[in-house]
Amino acid sequence: MSVPKEKKRPVKELRDQLRRDQIVSAARVCVVRHGFHGASMGQIAAEAQMSVGQIYRYFPSKEAIVHAIVERIVARRLEWMVDGEKQIDFAARFANRRHVDASDEERCERVLLLEITAEATRNPAVAEIVRAADRRLRGQAVELVRGNYPELSEEEAAARVEFVTVLSEGSAFRSVTEQIASPALLEGIYRDVLQKLFPRSTESGLS
Amino acid sequence: MSVPKEKKRPVKELRDQLRRDQIVSAARVCVVRHGFHGASMGQIAAEAQMSVGQIYRYFPSKEAIVHAIVERIVARRLEWMVDGEKQIDFAARFANRRHVDASDEERCERVLLLEITAEATRNPAVAEIVRAADRRLRGQAVELVRGNYPELSEEEAAARVEFVTVLSEGSAFRSVTEQIASPALLEGIYRDVLQKLFPRSTESGLS
Repeated sequence: MSVPKEKKRPVKELRDQLRRDQIVSAARVCVVRHGFHGASMGQIAAEAQMSVGQIYRYFPSKEAIVHAIVERIVARRLEWMVDGEKQIDFAARFANRRHVDASDEERCERVLLLEITAEATRNPAVAEIVRAADRRLRGQAVELVRGNYPELSEEEAAARVEFVTVLSEGSAFRSVTEQIASPALLEGIYRDVLQKLFPRSTESGLS
Repeated sequence: MSVPKEKKRPVKELRDQLRRDQIVSAARVCVVRHGFHGASMGQIAAEAQMSVGQIYRYFPSKEAIVHAIVERIVARRLEWMVDGEKQIDFAARFANRRHVDASDEERCERVLLLEITAEATRNPAVAEIVRAADRRLRGQAVELVRGNYPELSEEEAAARVEFVTVLSEGSAFRSVTEQIASPALLEGIYRDVLQKLFPRSTESGLS
């Protein structure tokens, strides 16, 4: 390329970032398609159209790729948490399996989290990645809740955040089963429960 | 053995049952240790101290073993659901990670369900096993709830059962993360929510 010498570094950095993104995307595809163990470095390399050697230049291990996958999921969730525009109706979302499956991206992330959580039960490095991500997300959520509900102690906010996280992850986990329960009745239950935990949020959005 | 001829059949049946149990136990160990894909028929055979050929005589595929694993989990849960003696305090259980980890058996089943659910996202045969098990368990739970709360319609009972299942599976799913939230505060939230859904159960056991 005809880039002057002094600009070579940023170009290299950009290219490295691009390669890393390529590898992470390829790894996501492989884990969703074949599972955590089915996704070998060789397959990830083939999917990314690189050599295995190139992959190792960017990521020393599969755990390092998992770390990058989780970091991106965390970044997306943090963005979605702090961006008021993206705030959604949790009750409707949790109560309707179709909502959970709204986008391919979300379906994909749900499968990734299932695979990574399963691996975390036997792989301490992966368990630490999951725990660190969870700490960051929960910390941010507790801060947000305390901003909106200054009357809550940090402990009370943490307990409410944990409860909503259980609802969210439980709903996602159950999306593999058929939805038999009526979405309308289920939404009513979620709405009552959430309204009691976060009373004012009903006035500002959750109808 | 010195068993008279006419008793040979029951002995064979017993032995077959024993072999099947041995294989299912070995498969559980392998899946917990290596994950769904890491658990090959060869490994299961080695763990069960049988040949791969013997395994195939009892189970035509890994899916058939998964089916048997799930059936046993379902049987244990059904038993636990209908046996009043085994009824537990859900609020305390959900709110305390230590309770979730109470027994090795439960920890093992949690890992198995994670692995099997992850596999269900890409394997239609496994997805159908999970769905059928879920239908049976939910059906039984709805019947129980309607027995205790005849004023609820089947639809209302189904929605409440679904909600409690989300709480239960969400709590189990989160047991891989650290428990930061105070168990006492979290237990209070669970207790309030469950009390509202199943008012009379507070009088009969949940203190």
